[in-house]
Amino acid sequence: MQTFQDIINHKTKPLGSLGKLEQLALQLATIQSSEKIAITQPQMLVFAGDHGIAAHNISIAPSAVTTLMVNNFLNGGAAINCFARTLGWQLKVIDCGILTDITHPSLIKSRLGQCTGDISKAPAMDKLQLDQAFSFCDDFIAQLARQGTNLLGFGEMGIGNTSPAAALCAALLKLPASQTIGAGTGINSSQLEAKLKLIECALARLTNLADLTPEQLLLELGGFEISHLVAAILAGFKHNMILLIDGFIVTAAALIAIKINPKCQENMVFAHCSMEQAHQKMLRSINAEPLLDLGLRLGEGTGAALALPLVLAAASFFNDMASFTEVGIEL
Amino acid sequence: MQTFQDIINHKTKPLGSLGKLEQLALQLATIQSSEKIAITQPQMLVFAGDHGIAAHNISIAPSAVTTLMVNNFLNGGAAINCFARTLGWQLKVIDCGILTDITHPSLIKSRLGQCTGDISKAPAMDKLQLDQAFSFCDDFIAQLARQGTNLLGFGEMGIGNTSPAAALCAALLKLPASQTIGAGTGINSSQLEAKLKLIECALARLTNLADLTPEQLLLELGGFEISHLVAAILAGFKHNMILLIDGFIVTAAALIAIKINPKCQENMVFAHCSMEQAHQKMLRSINAEPLLDLGLRLGEGTGAALALPLVLAAASFFNDMASFTEVGIEL
Repeated sequence: MQTFQDIINHKTKPLGSLGKLEQLALQLATIQSSEKIAITQPQMLVFAGDHGIAAHNISIAPSAVTTLMVNNFLNGGAAINCFARTLGWQLKVIDCGILTDITHPSLIKSRLGQCTGDISKAPAMDKLQLDQAFSFCDDFIAQLARQGTNLLGFGEMGIGNTSPAAALCAALLKLPASQTIGAGTGINSSQLEAKLKLIECALARLTNLADLTPEQLLLELGGFEISHLVAAILAGFKHNMILLIDGFIVTAAALIAIKINPKCQENMVFAHCSMEQAHQKMLRSINAEPLLDLGLRLGEGTGAALALPLVLAAASFFNDMASFTEVGIEL
Repeated sequence: MQTFQDIINHKTKPLGSLGKLEQLALQLATIQSSEKIAITQPQMLVFAGDHGIAAHNISIAPSAVTTLMVNNFLNGGAAINCFARTLGWQLKVIDCGILTDITHPSLIKSRLGQCTGDISKAPAMDKLQLDQAFSFCDDFIAQLARQGTNLLGFGEMGIGNTSPAAALCAALLKLPASQTIGAGTGINSSQLEAKLKLIECALARLTNLADLTPEQLLLELGGFEISHLVAAILAGFKHNMILLIDGFIVTAAALIAIKINPKCQENMVFAHCSMEQAHQKMLRSINAEPLLDLGLRLGEGTGAALALPLVLAAASFFNDMASFTEVGIEL
């Protein structure tokens, strides 16, 4: 690591003058243990799932919109498609369990059901479902590794999924639900109040909350796409991939992954800070400084997608910039 | 403009959920008066100049390093070269007057001298020199426009140029020099104290400071590269180009350009917020919200270079995202 810091310090620029990009380059070189950082076949993975809790009308749209948006992804019409095309990502969409079982040649399936249990009253899923998410992701990510991918971006789609994310955040950071909920993609104040009560019910259901393992938290409060995210992050780390973490939902999954294997944080790059208060709190709890702050609150992996050029720029200056010695400057 | 806002609002995403990228898309569409934003042949222009005031040892390196860094640009070894290659910029380097007259096939020349006058004691340049900067940039930018460029990035190199930028900022915002100086690329506290005194001398020299025109400010307190930056920004606006503004020095030039023609701000995209206190103050003075905040303090156009992917992403979602009607969602 000191070697890599020396390489950065001898580049033809004032010490530290590339700010966060220098820390990023140091992290990337350390992950790859190499004086040449390589980013190959970057893959954006968008995991989709539906949520039992969404039946309470606490989102700007009903669960059916998850299916419509997955179709939109498959037809190339969503924001993440535009960003992926423009910024050099390959994009894969995984149905982890949404209301309608769509048939489409590009859709990858690991359906755990039609939607999770309503977490305000019951567990989100059972152990068999969670195991399926992990075993699917192990195989899926191994296949991407064989094809040469060494960087993953993580995104999600699931009407209602800020609720399980807020519940998981409350459990992980030991905060009351009132400090972890937010307006999501734009609900009104009475919806926000209902959302708070439902998440309080979900947490109150678990009298032994502090003793639950990360896996138990996923079973009780998670989502099908969130479970896949946790599994995919851990599998990506097993293959020493760079893990580009998107917004609120993906960060909740990242925190669970870190609880399961703290070392995986070393490979995580936090792409952006979303508008949700709980996202900022989670980032702070692990001393993560996100690269971008653009006021995004969309999901889909859009924030992670936008951060890829910064990763490529950090790699390029680390790999290709001249050193002071090379250009004849002595400082 | 309402049409463009309607287009953005009907895209398949929650209202406003792409944050600053939505404002950016609206600005780009408004500049081009078009429902399809086109970014063609983006050109990064790095203007280099030397400064008489640098003889006082108030920088981390002597003026000779400007020449060495210009050679570094020409050989492809600087940070801006790496970012330009990685992010899709064409790069041009313009010698506006540096200590050594370099011969290199790729170097564009508009030399106004070897270095400016020492602004702590005398004007930076005379009217003939300033006129040359303007007439050169008129021709140069017109040629780029003919070749199809519709977006310019602006960068600079010039040992000592945070001093004229701080002096111009003090004059423009009517602030004491103590509130506009900073450590630049990393000087020590006694250098910072000397820098403050020199800029106070420069400002004290001009008893009629408040009455000076923007052009007179450039003559008295500017730099060869800063004058070219002002001229190139105004010329770019004449050709209705998108103007991607880098950090502290380029923003000082942008403020002068705005004083000369307030409408040119409509075409400016502010790329990033640097570590210099005066940069933040100048941005606030024109209600500009920069896209990135990465702790950069390098110059060369590096911040502007890093913002191009965000411009391309904003254009792509505006141009290509499906509308709610197209995917069958009613909100």
